[in-house]
Amino acid sequence: MKKALGIDIGGTKILYGIVNENGEVVSEVKKTYTPKTADEIFTTLKNIINEYFNEIDVIGLSSAGAVNLENTRVLSSTPNLPNGYNQIDFSTLCDKKVYVENDANCACAAEYKNGAGKGYNTVLMITIGTGIGGGVISNGKLFRGSKGNALEVGSMKIFADKRQKCTCGRYDCWESYASGTGLKNCALNGAKEYPEFKESIYKDKLPEELTTYDITDGIQQNDAFCIRVFNQWMEYMFVGLVSLTDIFNPDCIVISGGMCSFVDVDGLEKKINAESVVTSVKVRRATTGNNAGMIGAAVLALE
Amino acid sequence: MKKALGIDIGGTKILYGIVNENGEVVSEVKKTYTPKTADEIFTTLKNIINEYFNEIDVIGLSSAGAVNLENTRVLSSTPNLPNGYNQIDFSTLCDKKVYVENDANCACAAEYKNGAGKGYNTVLMITIGTGIGGGVISNGKLFRGSKGNALEVGSMKIFADKRQKCTCGRYDCWESYASGTGLKNCALNGAKEYPEFKESIYKDKLPEELTTYDITDGIQQNDAFCIRVFNQWMEYMFVGLVSLTDIFNPDCIVISGGMCSFVDVDGLEKKINAESVVTSVKVRRATTGNNAGMIGAAVLALE
Repeated sequence: MKKALGIDIGGTKILYGIVNENGEVVSEVKKTYTPKTADEIFTTLKNIINEYFNEIDVIGLSSAGAVNLENTRVLSSTPNLPNGYNQIDFSTLCDKKVYVENDANCACAAEYKNGAGKGYNTVLMITIGTGIGGGVISNGKLFRGSKGNALEVGSMKIFADKRQKCTCGRYDCWESYASGTGLKNCALNGAKEYPEFKESIYKDKLPEELTTYDITDGIQQNDAFCIRVFNQWMEYMFVGLVSLTDIFNPDCIVISGGMCSFVDVDGLEKKINAESVVTSVKVRRATTGNNAGMIGAAVLALE
Repeated sequence: MKKALGIDIGGTKILYGIVNENGEVVSEVKKTYTPKTADEIFTTLKNIINEYFNEIDVIGLSSAGAVNLENTRVLSSTPNLPNGYNQIDFSTLCDKKVYVENDANCACAAEYKNGAGKGYNTVLMITIGTGIGGGVISNGKLFRGSKGNALEVGSMKIFADKRQKCTCGRYDCWESYASGTGLKNCALNGAKEYPEFKESIYKDKLPEELTTYDITDGIQQNDAFCIRVFNQWMEYMFVGLVSLTDIFNPDCIVISGGMCSFVDVDGLEKKINAESVVTSVKVRRATTGNNAGMIGAAVLALE
């Protein structure tokens, strides 16, 4: 069975290990801090590859940002990675095939191959963190669009009347309602609108200072305000997911990312199947965790 | 070069002709009325196929409704086709390969192969009629989803607060704002909200009776009310299209269907490219017209 070195290049750390064609990690997973310059990142990657060179067939890299159609470069500038990073031609790292892919697409591939989406035909993966990202694999093929930018699902608009400004500067992006930032926005708006705020454990806090942790902690304490805020957040999550279900007809939606543990996946599955016009879908929490990028990049590189 | 018999089964007529691998029609295009029972439809199709049997390699059928993954049956009941239609196994029509596909997917294939989307990598086709349908082809492959139901884009929600009921019974479907029905809804709501209605050529008409023709005629007469209604309709069209652009990263969007001649494709292209987060897209009006279903079914059957 062929093997790939999977490398996940994050804003703070680089994670790497050997992965086989089944998406199984077959070495120790190591990590190192992400250097501060593009040159140092290139050198660090070269050293990691040299360490494993004789044990592997190909190299898969997972990175934030839009990746070119040839899977050799990261085109867009990404806020957490240094200037010059988008100048790197990753194919020059070594003599073996180096395949770069966007981190959300990699996570989708990992879940499809050996995670919550294993065995399904069409897996839609939605990452819910500060923003919202996505990937879709159908019949074993990642959908990339004309230039590799597809699945920018966080920018889908869920209102058409310029109601809420997103951190990106545009209006009514799904991620301004249903991401971690979205939960903060729900809390901020709720503090102004919901009478429950006056009885909340947070009634003396400035609405602008309410955090996602406040809300999730408050739910544990059965705080009516926090429950209402959370339900509104879930409603926004639902609206985006049911649209994407009708658009992609997935048989499995995998929810991943920093906020995924808070999401009511069973409730969403029930609501989506009651409302959607296409065949039914399962909603599952991701299982590949921190290794998602590394595994997915390796699996894609091996194809 | 291989040839297919393309047959478009519509609610009122069946259109057919021979199409080659380039998507060119190479015979006379004939039509016949759609019979009233499923049995008669089956017999009619059999007779049409017999007429051309020795000249063709495969048969492609375009039909309304969701098609199974094997492309042999129409699964859903479609309002304009008789009871029992969804019981037909089209693969039993003859000894040659018979391939059935949903009409929107067929139209997308026709535009991709030999229409407004020719030469593009990822073509998103949006049909705007009474409702809204869609199809997407990327790298030559139709995106079908897990069970062949994908691209139900008309059901995408463009509001998240249950603002307007759709004819389907759900709320805030894109097609209730941006289809032909959507234009009527824009007129109805506009008549109640816009002060321009009081000065409109339609000021004595009941808002419920305003038609899409009234609005498009009124624009020709420079009626301020009609212009405002139309601009709102275009705004709703834009909101859905920019979301779909970020989701699919197409390099070409083709607008087809009964309402497509009214759509301001150049204005939409400019607005979408200013707002979208992915690489730029062209917006074009469909060119294959009434032959779209026939050509697309043939082209897909030949693949």
